[in-house]
Amino acid sequence: MMVELTEMGLRARAAARQLGCAPSALRDAALEAIAAALLERQPEILRANQADVSKAAQNGIGEVMIDRLSLTADRIKDIAAAVRDVIRLPDPVGVVAAGITRPNGMRVLRTRVPLGVIGMIYESRPNVTVDAAVLCLKSGNACILRGGKEAIESNTVLAEVMQEAVASAGLPRDAIQLVTDTSHDSATAMMRLYGYIDVLIPRGSSRLIEAVVKNSIVPVIETGTGNCHVYVDESADLGMAADIIFNAKTSRPSVCNAAETLLVHRAVAAAFLPLAKARLDQKGVELRGCPEARAILPGIREAVEEDFYTEFLDYILAVKVVGSLEEATAHIAQYGTRHSEAIVTESYAAAEQFMQQVDAAAVYVNASTRFTDGGEFGMGAEMGISNQKLHARGPIGLEELTTTKFQIYGSGQIR
Amino acid sequence: MMVELTEMGLRARAAARQLGCAPSALRDAALEAIAAALLERQPEILRANQADVSKAAQNGIGEVMIDRLSLTADRIKDIAAAVRDVIRLPDPVGVVAAGITRPNGMRVLRTRVPLGVIGMIYESRPNVTVDAAVLCLKSGNACILRGGKEAIESNTVLAEVMQEAVASAGLPRDAIQLVTDTSHDSATAMMRLYGYIDVLIPRGSSRLIEAVVKNSIVPVIETGTGNCHVYVDESADLGMAADIIFNAKTSRPSVCNAAETLLVHRAVAAAFLPLAKARLDQKGVELRGCPEARAILPGIREAVEEDFYTEFLDYILAVKVVGSLEEATAHIAQYGTRHSEAIVTESYAAAEQFMQQVDAAAVYVNASTRFTDGGEFGMGAEMGISNQKLHARGPIGLEELTTTKFQIYGSGQIR
Repeated sequence: MMVELTEMGLRARAAARQLGCAPSALRDAALEAIAAALLERQPEILRANQADVSKAAQNGIGEVMIDRLSLTADRIKDIAAAVRDVIRLPDPVGVVAAGITRPNGMRVLRTRVPLGVIGMIYESRPNVTVDAAVLCLKSGNACILRGGKEAIESNTVLAEVMQEAVASAGLPRDAIQLVTDTSHDSATAMMRLYGYIDVLIPRGSSRLIEAVVKNSIVPVIETGTGNCHVYVDESADLGMAADIIFNAKTSRPSVCNAAETLLVHRAVAAAFLPLAKARLDQKGVELRGCPEARAILPGIREAVEEDFYTEFLDYILAVKVVGSLEEATAHIAQYGTRHSEAIVTESYAAAEQFMQQVDAAAVYVNASTRFTDGGEFGMGAEMGISNQKLHARGPIGLEELTTTKFQIYGSGQIR
Repeated sequence: MMVELTEMGLRARAAARQLGCAPSALRDAALEAIAAALLERQPEILRANQADVSKAAQNGIGEVMIDRLSLTADRIKDIAAAVRDVIRLPDPVGVVAAGITRPNGMRVLRTRVPLGVIGMIYESRPNVTVDAAVLCLKSGNACILRGGKEAIESNTVLAEVMQEAVASAGLPRDAIQLVTDTSHDSATAMMRLYGYIDVLIPRGSSRLIEAVVKNSIVPVIETGTGNCHVYVDESADLGMAADIIFNAKTSRPSVCNAAETLLVHRAVAAAFLPLAKARLDQKGVELRGCPEARAILPGIREAVEEDFYTEFLDYILAVKVVGSLEEATAHIAQYGTRHSEAIVTESYAAAEQFMQQVDAAAVYVNASTRFTDGGEFGMGAEMGISNQKLHARGPIGLEELTTTKFQIYGSGQIR
């Protein structure tokens, strides 16, 4: 396995060298060829996907997972449309991020260049295969993709369709490579490809991500667990607060930017909690409260310590009454995962204090945590949400798929 | 060891929270207190350093290493002056790197904030203890420092002097912590401090760096091996080329941005190599040449394959004659470490081709590779030179010691 992956790594490096010098018009032409090929070869893609879906059904995979795995004519249209959206994004490569002329006359530019070779280990959804390949190609990177075994037939066809499209546009087909061995061995081998893969991005369950963080020698961008909080301050507009917690919890509970814990200031708890519960009841959200919250909302389940550490990814919300903004930020520092945190307040001082004290990728005043997303932040499509501080924090957009190169123009300077 | 380090990690996190909210005036005051205390407590520092030096001499440590370990009144003055230079650098914290108002009225700012807790594992020179602590403090980070055993007495006093100075300025003394256990266990324990240390920077021998890259769970900024090349193109000004290779090889051979291999275009090899040799002979540089180079310079030693992979860090230079710019860039891609690479040329096309094709942290036209340095690039003092592509590539200055936080100001927006 290691030998095979090393060979893929060598081919990816060669492709990356070519991509690094390819002007954006050429990369965009390859992307357009991909979009066209996805639509044209739709029957073939659907057949392969049907094979994956049948096998999953035979293996007793649950309905939600089967839905995530399934492609339809409409979904393929959406995927192709998303490729065309990426074409319209500005090219991150070649941007001069900074520049200076030194006292000795040397010009020092700091220019964005592709990272080189990006590895991605992910799970079931086959659309990720296209999304990831397309963002890598747009940013001038070669990629080595390893999806989950459930989607192997779909991924194999999708990769082939994209490779042929890239080649038809005059770029190397090795720009996009798929690891077809979906055993643990292949994932482990990717984590050892130091010098071949420049960055490895795991995307999927927290178990997968943890395994990559712990075992990879290749630098990793950790994507993330989001144990996100909404704190309702004593000065909050309670109607706005109810709208925000309802949206943050229920608009899509399975994603990392959904809220998992509601913190409420004691001064407004008696007024706010029944209001919030009435809204959340509409979606059948189970509340798990601290003793004070249960005194206000008798009948809700008791929250145990563990609940405050849990990313439920479900219609479950932990609730805690706090005595002050400081208690809220201390709770967030202890239990949170530094992903997305929100305060609802009408107080300028409270807003600024929360904004400064909370350490997270995204901190909100009076808005839902659900906005933590590349598109919503105006960055375009994304490779995931980084939950680490190094290189990329928050949505991983095209710029985060680049590094910089110092370019020094001299006239004989020595030191 | 792990328990003790976990406790240090907890204290560092608490200190980092305070530092993250401390305005730059307060951090600068703490830095000034450090500069003053270093000068004031010089006798104490010199006594501790003398103990380290005596022990090193008893252990038969070589002269160069003893020189690196030694502090003098003048060196302490230089260190204190360097602290004051850092005070004058602009604060990287709080800079709004980007900002946008979204169609729904939400303002999204991307603001620089400290990384949090920075770990550093380094070797003998005690001045690194001060340099690292001071750059971390300036950028609002707490640090956990683990120096080499040779400098333990010096480092212990330096850390104590700095801690007391920081406390006297009203900031937490745990902003700077020193690991006094210099066994392998303590280094290993630091590499496991995931969640306590946000980034680990190894600085020293390639063996140390490799061990950290391979074993750390904490994200690493790899500092680097520099197998740097100077390529003399067929159109080069040969006098300029001789100046540049002389400077790149001999001005400080022990550093990572020194040149290790000279590549010469065949068309000018016969004219250039004797010229270069005459200059390099002044410093007793040993040349190791390919067969063609040896035909021009009979009597120089033969270069073996391994020589082209070697970072000599000494008065040794590998020499190879190439037939084209493409052959030069292919050699650099194969043997180089993507650190600093230079072309000497009068051709616009050759300059641009080299600049685009060579993948390295710094690519030079007509200047010495020795300029790869934070100060020389106008970034101020640095924590080392990163040889990786993620987060920091090239000199690790103050900005590279920060991350960003998305700050979202809403008025009730939901998604």
